[in-house]
Amino acid sequence: MSLKESYNKLTSLIEETLLIGTIQNILNWDFETYMPPKGVEQRAKQFAYLAKVAHEKTTDPIIGNLLKTIMEHPEYRTLTDIEKRNLYLIKREYDKETRVPSELVAEIAAQSAKTIQVWKEAKKEKNYLLYKPELNKILALTKKRAHYINPNLEPFDVLLDEFEPGMTSDIITKLFNELKAGLIPLIEKCITSSNQPDISLLKRNCPIEIQKRLSTSIASIVNYDLERGSIDETEHPFTTGYYDDVRITTHYYENDFVDSFYSVMHEAGHALYEQNLNRDFLYTSVGNYCSLGIHESQSRFIENILGRSPEFWEYYLPIFKKITGEIFSDVKTHSLVHALNRVIPSKIRVTADEVTYCLHIIIRFEIERDLLTGKISVDELPSVWNRKYKDYLGVDIEDNTEGVMQDTHWAGGAFGYFPTYALGNIYNAQMLNAMLKDLSNFKELIKTGQLSPIINWMIEKVHKPANMYDPPELMKRITGEEINPKYFIQYLEKKYSKIYGF
Amino acid sequence: MSLKESYNKLTSLIEETLLIGTIQNILNWDFETYMPPKGVEQRAKQFAYLAKVAHEKTTDPIIGNLLKTIMEHPEYRTLTDIEKRNLYLIKREYDKETRVPSELVAEIAAQSAKTIQVWKEAKKEKNYLLYKPELNKILALTKKRAHYINPNLEPFDVLLDEFEPGMTSDIITKLFNELKAGLIPLIEKCITSSNQPDISLLKRNCPIEIQKRLSTSIASIVNYDLERGSIDETEHPFTTGYYDDVRITTHYYENDFVDSFYSVMHEAGHALYEQNLNRDFLYTSVGNYCSLGIHESQSRFIENILGRSPEFWEYYLPIFKKITGEIFSDVKTHSLVHALNRVIPSKIRVTADEVTYCLHIIIRFEIERDLLTGKISVDELPSVWNRKYKDYLGVDIEDNTEGVMQDTHWAGGAFGYFPTYALGNIYNAQMLNAMLKDLSNFKELIKTGQLSPIINWMIEKVHKPANMYDPPELMKRITGEEINPKYFIQYLEKKYSKIYGF
Repeated sequence: MSLKESYNKLTSLIEETLLIGTIQNILNWDFETYMPPKGVEQRAKQFAYLAKVAHEKTTDPIIGNLLKTIMEHPEYRTLTDIEKRNLYLIKREYDKETRVPSELVAEIAAQSAKTIQVWKEAKKEKNYLLYKPELNKILALTKKRAHYINPNLEPFDVLLDEFEPGMTSDIITKLFNELKAGLIPLIEKCITSSNQPDISLLKRNCPIEIQKRLSTSIASIVNYDLERGSIDETEHPFTTGYYDDVRITTHYYENDFVDSFYSVMHEAGHALYEQNLNRDFLYTSVGNYCSLGIHESQSRFIENILGRSPEFWEYYLPIFKKITGEIFSDVKTHSLVHALNRVIPSKIRVTADEVTYCLHIIIRFEIERDLLTGKISVDELPSVWNRKYKDYLGVDIEDNTEGVMQDTHWAGGAFGYFPTYALGNIYNAQMLNAMLKDLSNFKELIKTGQLSPIINWMIEKVHKPANMYDPPELMKRITGEEINPKYFIQYLEKKYSKIYGF
Repeated sequence: MSLKESYNKLTSLIEETLLIGTIQNILNWDFETYMPPKGVEQRAKQFAYLAKVAHEKTTDPIIGNLLKTIMEHPEYRTLTDIEKRNLYLIKREYDKETRVPSELVAEIAAQSAKTIQVWKEAKKEKNYLLYKPELNKILALTKKRAHYINPNLEPFDVLLDEFEPGMTSDIITKLFNELKAGLIPLIEKCITSSNQPDISLLKRNCPIEIQKRLSTSIASIVNYDLERGSIDETEHPFTTGYYDDVRITTHYYENDFVDSFYSVMHEAGHALYEQNLNRDFLYTSVGNYCSLGIHESQSRFIENILGRSPEFWEYYLPIFKKITGEIFSDVKTHSLVHALNRVIPSKIRVTADEVTYCLHIIIRFEIERDLLTGKISVDELPSVWNRKYKDYLGVDIEDNTEGVMQDTHWAGGAFGYFPTYALGNIYNAQMLNAMLKDLSNFKELIKTGQLSPIINWMIEKVHKPANMYDPPELMKRITGEEINPKYFIQYLEKKYSKIYGF
């Protein structure tokens, strides 16, 4: 086989694994939306079968042989940068997947399902002691897996790298310390301000049919293509799919239109990224998204930087009032924007505001980093958790279900995943700073509802490069700088000093 | 490997191919229901990939080797009847799939797509000449495929056997001739009767929300389990799925509640069969349905024998009126039943009544049988078609779009498939005759809405045996007799003489 033939053979094998991924997406979407309730058993068999096939395909020795042939080929250097990046990504995945024994993969899948189940029960019974032994088991298995992948690195760094390639706990610690230093005084200013919003207007009854019309309206305003997507209902909102078929979900509550409104914006941000990946790279490794942090930067850009900005509401409020009729006819832009941006320290991450949110993430990061090095034990978790919530956010956790047991992530073995949520904010504010140099009329564009130049900037700078670069390199190419949390602090200070008037 | 090990290895390979089938079902259902319109390209890739994997798996030489090992094993006779039937079915499928060259499979897939596309255009343009050459091509390829499968049989018999194992064109000719002889005079009596129904009441406006409530109501009355199923909307109604996840679809028209009402009953009949297959046989060859004819017997039993019976409406009319409110409050059982059972010769098969329907099928059968032996050519098709419609149904076809071009089946290469529609009627009336011996209070049960004993009889006699026997053997076990169309004629004569009063 010539170099070209080997390369084509390899990428056609990878295309099949990516196609299996898109099939898994649809089955999972169906599972969460329309599957009959008792279809679970059959779906579990389908999932298990596809997971087995996907694992066999990604660890097939043919891939290893082809990689070796290609990389040792005398004409290797004649390949394009895109081809070389593809090979790098294929090798990274292959090495990782082949290093972990199949038995351990199966053991982790089983233990993770078990721990999640026990977590649910323990949360219902408010009993951390019930959860603890299972959490210990999944933690041990996760560390074991990390050791297989790379015995020379700290387990936390191995896990983090899977979600955010190029990131280390040292870098994150530095970034998050800066963030913390900026956030704590800002939160203090907001919560001690005498100028507090009236949030009762957010709880006005808004019929679900109207909320659905709002969903379609904002989806189309941010250019989410509904001919290549859909908005359905699930318990927890999510985005799934790839390029021509990217679906989002939301949840409607009559007395909380904010929930569906911003979950649609958030998920539409994720969906935009997938819908605008580089057509030339489709079904190749380089044609995937870059990292979870970059993905989150896109969802939060749409949700917060655009969607919660005063400028957006200057444009959108008339449309909003037209759709909602009498319900909000008396509402003024400033009061609505202030209510939507109220800063208030709380116990629950998922409902936290834009400013305090990152502190929730920092707490989780600090704890999981220390859990994985063994600096703290699962026994000490609740006390460490509660102390940090008191220190950073000033809130008292009286009940572990509102504390360490609030999230499912650790039960599922997802250690090293949380930091990507805060990285998304750091990234998107830094992107915004770069964007402002190209689009100096940024605020004017939003005020007049001309979002396309903004979205198109993101498409060119973030979506189209897809997975050509790891996050640090991508950020450097977009912004000309190293990753720097100061832009996020500056963005928040500017926005909130204006809203709160300090 | 021991005999048992070989057998288990073989059945685990087959289980995987059946699981792929269930995944294809979901993707196809999604394609017809909720897929975003521009998701077509990605879905085509997924379909092609799964079809390729399924073909590779069903023709894997390992299956052939295992079959040989097992069937030549000295202890073969120690296997159970179920295991032997499984082996027989696996071998039948394997032999068929391996005899047809992959290139021909691909060629047929491509030509069938082409012919369907041209058929659509030609139908729109009312131009048979445009369609003719493509129909000729798919016919030639289909004959070629039949020759590969079995060069010693007439191509039509090879094709028929795929849909209805154990059936031949000779048997069908005999059955259909009897049927025709019984139907033609019966139709004459109905259409010349002075007692004709008022069908205008069927066209009363019935809001779609109400029709949806009717759908759920009748689905639950016939024991279709909505916890293992769902009712969604598609252009053409269908049933898809297996055991714990069997979904049906329908189409709602404001001025034609009959359409959705009986399509739900029809599809629920199909769904009942799939939901009640033998749990012990799941994901094995013997755990599938028996044949398309037997499947159709189940859908038509629910739709016609139950759903269009005077007894059903004696029970259901009050419920129907409660759901539909004022719309049908003045309607009497007899007038509604008569309207729902109006006999009228027509040109279009899919909207034909219970009595004339079989003549449409007989015409198609006679033509495709003669097409495949070469007795008639594609050139002569329209004239032969139109003559038969005049002879059997007394209608004049002036336009091929209402004649030979009305159905998509032949364009898709589905020759030998039509007879199963009429066989379904022959089977279900014969089943009914056997059922009456066990449930002498059959009519009373329906009148009082106690459908469970009736459905349970079908479950025990038809659904649970699944694919243990080919249709002729299954019918003999259920009814103690050879397949006999006289029961269908008798059923029709009894029912329609009462309704029309002759």
